[in-house]
Amino acid sequence: MTFLVKILIFPKEGVLDTQGKAVARSLKRIGFEALNDVRVGKYIQVWLEAGNEAEAIAKAGSMCGELLVNNLIEDHRIEVERCGL
Amino acid sequence: MTFLVKILIFPKEGVLDTQGKAVARSLKRIGFEALNDVRVGKYIQVWLEAGNEAEAIAKAGSMCGELLVNNLIEDHRIEVERCGL
Repeated sequence: MTFLVKILIFPKEGVLDTQGKAVARSLKRIGFEALNDVRVGKYIQVWLEAGNEAEAIAKAGSMCGELLVNNLIEDHRIEVERCGL
Repeated sequence: MTFLVKILIFPKEGVLDTQGKAVARSLKRIGFEALNDVRVGKYIQVWLEAGNEAEAIAKAGSMCGELLVNNLIEDHRIEVERCGL
């Protein structure tokens, strides 16, 4: 079965996010004043084969731990949906 | 009211995603063989002030159109949640 795994990766609270600060400044400059904070992270979509949803989530968790996420400075969230029902 | 707007930005179908290809190759190299495709996009969190949820979504839509999204090559999705209920 094919699953689409959506991995959201974002800076941990307290970690300086220079990209987010730059985007916030740019948004304010073009008129979006009512802005408290902006944080920029990554959105990774992975289409993979797995026997069931739990296996797909487990695989995605391993991918995050081994390659995709830097746990020192980033948090992540995993969402899974089945493709081509 | 403060809202957290989550903006998911990802390459349009058919657009070459070199970053995604590189990540896919790396994942395969470390043992994740059952992989069909990987696409890498951005995940932007914006905390903003708005009168209600519809206004927050409208503001986020304008931010995407004016600065955050390149509509030629990227699609996006907006999710909103109210903070500090």
